[in-house]
Amino acid sequence: MDDIIEPKLILNPEICRRNIQIMVQRVKAWSGDFRPHFKTHQSATIGEWFKQEGIERITVSSFKMAQYFANHGWNDITIAITVTAKHAQLIDQLASKINLNIVLEDENNITELEQQLHNPVGVFIKVDTGYHRTGIDADNLSKLKQLLQLLKNSKKLIFIGFLTHAGHTYHVHGEDQMQKIVKPALDKLLVLKTFLKDEFPLMQLSWGDTPSCSVYNDFYGVDEFRPGNFVFYDYTQSEIGSCNLEDIAVCLAVPVLAVHPERNEVVVHGGAVHLSKDYLRKEDGSISYGKVIAMNGLQWNVDEIVGEVKSLSQEHGIISVEGDSIRNIKPGDQLGILPVHSCLTANLMKQFWCTDGNKIDMMP
Amino acid sequence: MDDIIEPKLILNPEICRRNIQIMVQRVKAWSGDFRPHFKTHQSATIGEWFKQEGIERITVSSFKMAQYFANHGWNDITIAITVTAKHAQLIDQLASKINLNIVLEDENNITELEQQLHNPVGVFIKVDTGYHRTGIDADNLSKLKQLLQLLKNSKKLIFIGFLTHAGHTYHVHGEDQMQKIVKPALDKLLVLKTFLKDEFPLMQLSWGDTPSCSVYNDFYGVDEFRPGNFVFYDYTQSEIGSCNLEDIAVCLAVPVLAVHPERNEVVVHGGAVHLSKDYLRKEDGSISYGKVIAMNGLQWNVDEIVGEVKSLSQEHGIISVEGDSIRNIKPGDQLGILPVHSCLTANLMKQFWCTDGNKIDMMP
Repeated sequence: MDDIIEPKLILNPEICRRNIQIMVQRVKAWSGDFRPHFKTHQSATIGEWFKQEGIERITVSSFKMAQYFANHGWNDITIAITVTAKHAQLIDQLASKINLNIVLEDENNITELEQQLHNPVGVFIKVDTGYHRTGIDADNLSKLKQLLQLLKNSKKLIFIGFLTHAGHTYHVHGEDQMQKIVKPALDKLLVLKTFLKDEFPLMQLSWGDTPSCSVYNDFYGVDEFRPGNFVFYDYTQSEIGSCNLEDIAVCLAVPVLAVHPERNEVVVHGGAVHLSKDYLRKEDGSISYGKVIAMNGLQWNVDEIVGEVKSLSQEHGIISVEGDSIRNIKPGDQLGILPVHSCLTANLMKQFWCTDGNKIDMMP
Repeated sequence: MDDIIEPKLILNPEICRRNIQIMVQRVKAWSGDFRPHFKTHQSATIGEWFKQEGIERITVSSFKMAQYFANHGWNDITIAITVTAKHAQLIDQLASKINLNIVLEDENNITELEQQLHNPVGVFIKVDTGYHRTGIDADNLSKLKQLLQLLKNSKKLIFIGFLTHAGHTYHVHGEDQMQKIVKPALDKLLVLKTFLKDEFPLMQLSWGDTPSCSVYNDFYGVDEFRPGNFVFYDYTQSEIGSCNLEDIAVCLAVPVLAVHPERNEVVVHGGAVHLSKDYLRKEDGSISYGKVIAMNGLQWNVDEIVGEVKSLSQEHGIISVEGDSIRNIKPGDQLGILPVHSCLTANLMKQFWCTDGNKIDMMP
């Protein structure tokens, strides 16, 4: 039954629950509210593990995900992706059932949504604290004040605070580099809070990203934390320094299809339709699509490194094997791949086979 | 109804059917058998469009896909991924219902499968003609003869021929570079055929890949062709020179979430969970995750270039806008993205919204 004849995403519930418990404790130590991002696991069952740790509010990244978790009993959800007036009907439907927060950053959309919505909805303004992906520049106080003025006069759009995602923490290695990114981003938020606290005393600052929440500790002034990836972590996070390899809770089990000792390579059934095609650049400059380790049944062992996924096509992965371990590998064997980006791998695999024998479904 | 409030993969059936018809004609001109690869569309409905052009034999890249198409009336299928003895039961089930061909490249697996199978199955030996992903080196005649000897004595494993995938054609630009890759690969196959034709007079050479099948013409000696991507083509194929932008049959329609004129960038809802994270490096060295064009309802227009997808996260895409067209873009608008890799995008989106109003499902 444990025979791996096609790729399967294996989940170790113990590691996963430990990751959840540790992050709950960390956020508690900062006296913050924890609103974990559920885009990584997309699973009602794993959501329950959060509930058991006292979590009641969550973050998602699409309406589809918000609907799924609302149907599974979550009634306080932030959709952390900028929305527009075109989404009015979707927003209204959800806001009639749950406490919904949305993210806005455009004047016209605020005006239009105010006209179209029937149900009140919480609003975060997305601010850009240095990642430059989306959001109003946190230094652009005049633009932010314009938006706040509109929200102040609104009956449906209830201003909650500023939300940021410091996604550039994904490009660092270790605590020192992290400090250099996180400190200026936090300072920008604090300046906003200082300037606006008299007018908006209940204003909240909402902070995302697993790397900073995993290693940084001085979040003075931040009210809410939305990391998501930490629930599984992945190879990228271990390279950043957010976790160790043994904290990674998911592993793609793949069957070996061919062995090429002459170039120290193994071909596995496990490609871009299973892992996604995200890669990481290691400190030595080399590229990897996954860390390859030994597996025994549904158990993997991070102390038995086999090599790196050197390239991926639709269904195949090519593994560059380290040392002379290729002598022990033959077609039909199985190997484990710690994914470079667990969110994308889970999103492709759509279900988890647990090390304890259970199977867990994700959002269809 | 045509309002795009979430990413949708739009398919133009006219372009798609034209792509199919042209490839059918090309393969006919080479007097070859056409066994198109169905991993790109993964759809029974689009499969019917091939059937209407006289196609009866197909290629797939997984057992799951083989089962799906067998259930939809296809009874001559090659699974073009190396299999092992662990797959014996899956092979046997399929081979009891349809004409099944599998791909092998390992002695022990041949011996074990011969013992375990009850139903005869066609066997291609995978040969490596220069791509170095998988397969026995086409120059390694002694190894190939060993495998052929085993197959010759087999009752269940019926040797059909050699199968190769010249995937390195994906790294070229234009016909001259293509010639330099395809010619030596074909020569290797012809040498094999010449050496072995007395002993195996019915031996077939099976050739894959869309780039070469789209532009090359001198396939002397090749018996069967297995291109797949051509059914949709994509931005990568247009950069290689396999097609023009107007031959691309699929386009991801995405809603604009935010506009940043100060850096000429637009944020769309359309990320790695929709497009996949494949990218292409253009001839000028820049990287793109997709070509962005104007859309009107479900129709796109390749003459109205908006820009390039410069980066992707899970749900977001950042578009670098060319010229001053950003002045005409506002949140809530829709744009089209010609995918870098249509196989991976289709695999993620799981359904097609047709420009003629129909909806087409894929393998679940």
